[in-house]
Amino acid sequence: MKLTYNKSRVSEEEIVTIGEQLSSYAEHLKEVLQHGYEDEESSINLPSDKELMESVGAAVRDKNTTSLKYILVIGIGGSNLGTKAIYDALYGHFDILEPSRMPKMIFLDTTNPAFLAHLESFFDKEITNEEEVVINVISKGGSTTETVVNAELALGMLRKKYAGIMNRLVVTTDFGSLLWKIAEEKDITRLSIPEKVGGRYSVLSAVGLFPLAKAGVNVTSLLSGALEMRERCLSLDIGKNPAMASAAALFINYRRGKTINDNFIFHPELESLGKWYRQLLGESIGKEHNREGEVVHIGITPTISIGSTDLHSVGQLYLGGPEDKLTTFISAEYDKRGSVVTPEVFAGVLSGVAGKKPADVAEAILKGVKIAYEKKGLPFMEALLPDITPASLGAFMQFKMMEMMYLGQLFNVNPFDQPNVELYKIETKNILNS
Amino acid sequence: MKLTYNKSRVSEEEIVTIGEQLSSYAEHLKEVLQHGYEDEESSINLPSDKELMESVGAAVRDKNTTSLKYILVIGIGGSNLGTKAIYDALYGHFDILEPSRMPKMIFLDTTNPAFLAHLESFFDKEITNEEEVVINVISKGGSTTETVVNAELALGMLRKKYAGIMNRLVVTTDFGSLLWKIAEEKDITRLSIPEKVGGRYSVLSAVGLFPLAKAGVNVTSLLSGALEMRERCLSLDIGKNPAMASAAALFINYRRGKTINDNFIFHPELESLGKWYRQLLGESIGKEHNREGEVVHIGITPTISIGSTDLHSVGQLYLGGPEDKLTTFISAEYDKRGSVVTPEVFAGVLSGVAGKKPADVAEAILKGVKIAYEKKGLPFMEALLPDITPASLGAFMQFKMMEMMYLGQLFNVNPFDQPNVELYKIETKNILNS
Repeated sequence: MKLTYNKSRVSEEEIVTIGEQLSSYAEHLKEVLQHGYEDEESSINLPSDKELMESVGAAVRDKNTTSLKYILVIGIGGSNLGTKAIYDALYGHFDILEPSRMPKMIFLDTTNPAFLAHLESFFDKEITNEEEVVINVISKGGSTTETVVNAELALGMLRKKYAGIMNRLVVTTDFGSLLWKIAEEKDITRLSIPEKVGGRYSVLSAVGLFPLAKAGVNVTSLLSGALEMRERCLSLDIGKNPAMASAAALFINYRRGKTINDNFIFHPELESLGKWYRQLLGESIGKEHNREGEVVHIGITPTISIGSTDLHSVGQLYLGGPEDKLTTFISAEYDKRGSVVTPEVFAGVLSGVAGKKPADVAEAILKGVKIAYEKKGLPFMEALLPDITPASLGAFMQFKMMEMMYLGQLFNVNPFDQPNVELYKIETKNILNS
Repeated sequence: MKLTYNKSRVSEEEIVTIGEQLSSYAEHLKEVLQHGYEDEESSINLPSDKELMESVGAAVRDKNTTSLKYILVIGIGGSNLGTKAIYDALYGHFDILEPSRMPKMIFLDTTNPAFLAHLESFFDKEITNEEEVVINVISKGGSTTETVVNAELALGMLRKKYAGIMNRLVVTTDFGSLLWKIAEEKDITRLSIPEKVGGRYSVLSAVGLFPLAKAGVNVTSLLSGALEMRERCLSLDIGKNPAMASAAALFINYRRGKTINDNFIFHPELESLGKWYRQLLGESIGKEHNREGEVVHIGITPTISIGSTDLHSVGQLYLGGPEDKLTTFISAEYDKRGSVVTPEVFAGVLSGVAGKKPADVAEAILKGVKIAYEKKGLPFMEALLPDITPASLGAFMQFKMMEMMYLGQLFNVNPFDQPNVELYKIETKNILNS
């Protein structure tokens, strides 16, 4: 992955100053590598955790069947966004075009009555044997309302039909949570999440690895991509450390009123990757209090746009409206296979596309947009992936998770907590219990 | 649909003042009803256009087959967002659970090399007969790069296999555009868009009606829902006019620094409806110049959040972060069918859910969130749909399109143009032609 920030309207001097400011924290992160899962930043130890790979591998083998058709991922927020990001990038976005490719993932996150009603007929029509499904229930704390409700309902539907369905279930939760204990009593397969690894930093733990491995994703490549990136993001030289540089550009632009970070992704199959980052940035930096407990109401609002689609939707707003955004263009080198355009049916409507490949057209649009942004003085960064593979996705996600740690330092907030979400949870629990 | 704005932190007095300010414009809109498609607001005439329904009906009948499996919608921005909003709400969100329900819609918007590569094998494997597909190419101006490129490539793939595929094609464009003329020469079925109806206001024209009718959506209900709402949104009494009231709340909150309008939708199947509105608000009000040509860089940044999913993603940011958002909670009365939750597998993990239906849980979460927002002093409106049906969707969309017209008045901008998108289009064309 290549990060370019020379159009972010941040001077080299400013970048260097931030680099100096963050160097002791980079030293701290290097120490975290020696401490297992003790520190709040310990998610950076996941890509090199051999025991983790073994336990996930064992569960994957335990649930092996020759007829697997569907992986039911029951989890919400940090429990499914990373998995969905990778699945959609590699497979999910194309599922509509590949009705017979199996296994497919089905995600149950919120409790949606309409979706659950469809699920019941889906089980009746599409599942003929328990070996055709694997169910992964994922809840870090173990008592997420939506997840437990969805799991009870889905399992209730399946238990009526298949006596052995409990053997097709894997529970992923913190070791020792109430959910863990219940699963243990009932001899349900369990995978643990290290306590200090928060949901939004957990994609490279069993949370993501188990369902992705079941879906056929090369999780070894995913982790090795992350591992390589981890090395880069530990560098004390900000010029060689994309996480530090990106954090610097976000922070400096925020101080100049760019309170929105638009992630403009030029591959629709990466939309879910954008949504994963949306949680990471939104929840990690959006805070009522700083580290000293002072009221700050700070945060960057992340938005996800898809190119070229959203140029025809919010392009007008971005190019003409309020100058409150720092854009991160995210793209991968385009696949140059595929036919060239030969205008036949509509010959004469369009100039400049004859003999071009779809990749050439997509590239020309992205280039055109960048020139337009530059002419308008709109700040932007670019993250260019070499391709859309598990290794590149792992690298990108590791980059962003470490960017968030540096960003927490710059904003002087705790990028690992989310105290304000308790507000609605308390009200909801009161309503449900009244 | 019921709009509630008493938690938008706007006083009744302010609302009334805005209502007075907008009443002459409401009078103007009533006159537009007498002028066919002459005025820039003339999209409000679509729901009562009998000729339109006849021409769409004729095209639908002309393409009738007993074996229709896929409707290929080739268009971008205003040419597909409305169609996708309605299709996804009624069918698309559940397509993964209904592999054998037909016909399905497939959307080609941006030129995505990976999607196009999958499309080629999809045609080979899933289409055995030209009567199984209908292709609708939609481009208002007729020369949208992505649309023409995608159309040429998709038709190129199909023409190799099916001699009669051109009979399965419908072109929707402005009467007299170059695309129209070429289609006419080649005797391709054509549907026209009234010139003054801009892309983002065109869902109730042939743009949306043809593909939706082919997919089995009751477009008569869609239009009658819109028609009823049109009457409400022409009222001079702002208390009875949801479009006017919503515009007032958005405008007053914008002046107080709420530069983001978060549309927090509590039904995941309405996410595409949110994206349709994102274009409508983003492109209509996000402007470099006001009506007098002065540089203003004005606009509200629309965001789409899905409840309860995104409470586990950006809920922390919304409840704790910068106070720069006006939220519109969008929901429909929940479907109260479905089983009750009977904690069995994970009994004891969660209190308060036993005997509840998924709808009760979803409702409790939404209520809990609203209480939390209120306690935090965060302004919000609520749009409550009676159900998720074509009539309710038509009503909601008509409400929002007329809200935008009132909002254009308040912001003193032209809500029907999008001059700044030309900036990147020029650069892209230069690159493609060099």
